[in-house]
Amino acid sequence: MAGGRGERFWPQSCAATPKHLLPIVGDKTMLAQTVDRVAGVVPRENIFVLTTQAQLDGCRTASPGLPAGNVVAEPMGRDTAAATGLAMLLVKERSPNAALAMLPADHVIHDTVEYRQLLTVAFEAAESADVLVTLGIKPTAPETGFGYIEQAGPWKTIAGRPVMTVKRFVEKPDGETAKGYLASGRYFWNAGMFVWRVPVVEAAFKAHAPELYAGLAKMEAAAVKAAGGWSKALPEIYPTLQKISVDYALMEKSTNVVVVPATFDWDDVGAWPAIAKHFTPDAAGNVLRGLAMVENGSGNIVVSDDGHLTAVVGANDLVVVHTPTATLVVPKDKAQEIKALLKRLADDPAKKKFL
Amino acid sequence: MAGGRGERFWPQSCAATPKHLLPIVGDKTMLAQTVDRVAGVVPRENIFVLTTQAQLDGCRTASPGLPAGNVVAEPMGRDTAAATGLAMLLVKERSPNAALAMLPADHVIHDTVEYRQLLTVAFEAAESADVLVTLGIKPTAPETGFGYIEQAGPWKTIAGRPVMTVKRFVEKPDGETAKGYLASGRYFWNAGMFVWRVPVVEAAFKAHAPELYAGLAKMEAAAVKAAGGWSKALPEIYPTLQKISVDYALMEKSTNVVVVPATFDWDDVGAWPAIAKHFTPDAAGNVLRGLAMVENGSGNIVVSDDGHLTAVVGANDLVVVHTPTATLVVPKDKAQEIKALLKRLADDPAKKKFL
Repeated sequence: MAGGRGERFWPQSCAATPKHLLPIVGDKTMLAQTVDRVAGVVPRENIFVLTTQAQLDGCRTASPGLPAGNVVAEPMGRDTAAATGLAMLLVKERSPNAALAMLPADHVIHDTVEYRQLLTVAFEAAESADVLVTLGIKPTAPETGFGYIEQAGPWKTIAGRPVMTVKRFVEKPDGETAKGYLASGRYFWNAGMFVWRVPVVEAAFKAHAPELYAGLAKMEAAAVKAAGGWSKALPEIYPTLQKISVDYALMEKSTNVVVVPATFDWDDVGAWPAIAKHFTPDAAGNVLRGLAMVENGSGNIVVSDDGHLTAVVGANDLVVVHTPTATLVVPKDKAQEIKALLKRLADDPAKKKFL
Repeated sequence: MAGGRGERFWPQSCAATPKHLLPIVGDKTMLAQTVDRVAGVVPRENIFVLTTQAQLDGCRTASPGLPAGNVVAEPMGRDTAAATGLAMLLVKERSPNAALAMLPADHVIHDTVEYRQLLTVAFEAAESADVLVTLGIKPTAPETGFGYIEQAGPWKTIAGRPVMTVKRFVEKPDGETAKGYLASGRYFWNAGMFVWRVPVVEAAFKAHAPELYAGLAKMEAAAVKAAGGWSKALPEIYPTLQKISVDYALMEKSTNVVVVPATFDWDDVGAWPAIAKHFTPDAAGNVLRGLAMVENGSGNIVVSDDGHLTAVVGANDLVVVHTPTATLVVPKDKAQEIKALLKRLADDPAKKKFL
């Protein structure tokens, strides 16, 4: 899944170059890193990238070794349940009983070895029973920005790794609730990483999202069983699909969900301040990328590419990002306020070009 | 006098484009504004600009209507006493008994009418007696960044304006002393604006700075009375002149000094934070120049030219200046720390080009 707008990384990210098409952390784009990571488990010819029209070229460039046809653009965003349905149909067309993983393309995972182990366990779990498998992240803080997965108890051990049954999916909690989840030891963060066989997820659509299922069936008939194929079916039918998240449409309602506790590092790098932990800071605790300097300051993140010098003097805990078109200055603890700025840009015909 | 480095306005100011060659306040460069201001009192052909080799072309461009030969470059900076001596010799060559004004080219004065009145009064004072005339600025705060002039009492009234005798020139005081100066009502800021006749200032050099006087006499002989003229005399002799300020060499030691109390507005615009009072802020109290935006912040100064967007989000009282080559972010109350940054740039061969 590589269709996000990544507006929280403005001004580096924009409509055509969102977070997963940038080397926010590391030298390659986050999509390329994701493809490389998965390619250790899944042959490249079986990796699909779902993206948007605006990002189609960028995603093809960032997906080395993938057939161009495996990079598929949604005609418009219809949330994650429709994307899940599209992925299911693309795989079903090739192999009706195959297992597939749904994975976000903009997360940072450094421990590739452990990741591939756990992804393999998840595939084996999905192939061993009619279950919806999810990879759950062990919480390290009472985060209120993620949904949570409550486990019910042991289900199986696969390749020496425990897999748990799931009691429930819960949406983003408030701070107090999140603290309780963390303390209980029974909850995982929902990182949106799922593995299932085509017939199992199809049955879940049929049982829990019948309206969306009907739309998907219609699209399958138009694409696979009629003339014109996907190039006709996608623009005609995809935009009519129900717009709903996969968590709400399937996961919260299904009773056959299991969770593989993820033992690799994981970070969704939600905004600029989150990049700090992926870089070695200077002696004063500043993260400097490109031609960036800090004089008498600490805790700053300064990103300055293309030979432009960006200097912070006498200030702490700022994010300063310079690109050839725009510069952002925001205190780390105010990074969420970028959204209000971007709304003002979107509403101003003269400044819209900076998005 | 247009030879300052203006490093306090980095990154807009640099060696070839210092403060007086920038439109820091207003649409014209500060030098052009100064020339226009003086031109109401002194014919353009009698206005000289003293500058550096690096700024010679810039100063000629910024001095419309002045003969190119009136823009003179010092071969190297030798402080204000040597510059004063050079100015004296340049005027003496044309008119041995003329009165001349020494004026900085990087101050902001909006009230041009009153300025011209007072400059005329200063010229009349200088022509009426053998005195060194200075224009003194009425202090509005206990500033520690300026030298002060203590008046001794009334001297004359010229065109209805009082002119006072001067008791002493004093160097930059500490905070307590400055408060006492302000409270006494007897002190003026020394803005470095002087008017005197050639023979009077020459006598002052002879009496109080004999070493420098000897050097000036030698340069005069080489330039005016020998072949080769200034183009030979300046590079040969100017670099050997004693390096000393005019305040220390002449003003602190002379007993024939009078002061014209300046009744026009005056600002030396010493650093970025000082530009705020010359612009109308937005509703939240931010000064925005060029394509600059502030979202949820106040008291910021944001300067962004050349079509580049610079946005400050959730921060107060910052100075953010973007130029095509460099960007500066500094809290207003830390602006003096730019000097440490510029020293680091000067010491780094790879970054020296940003000065």
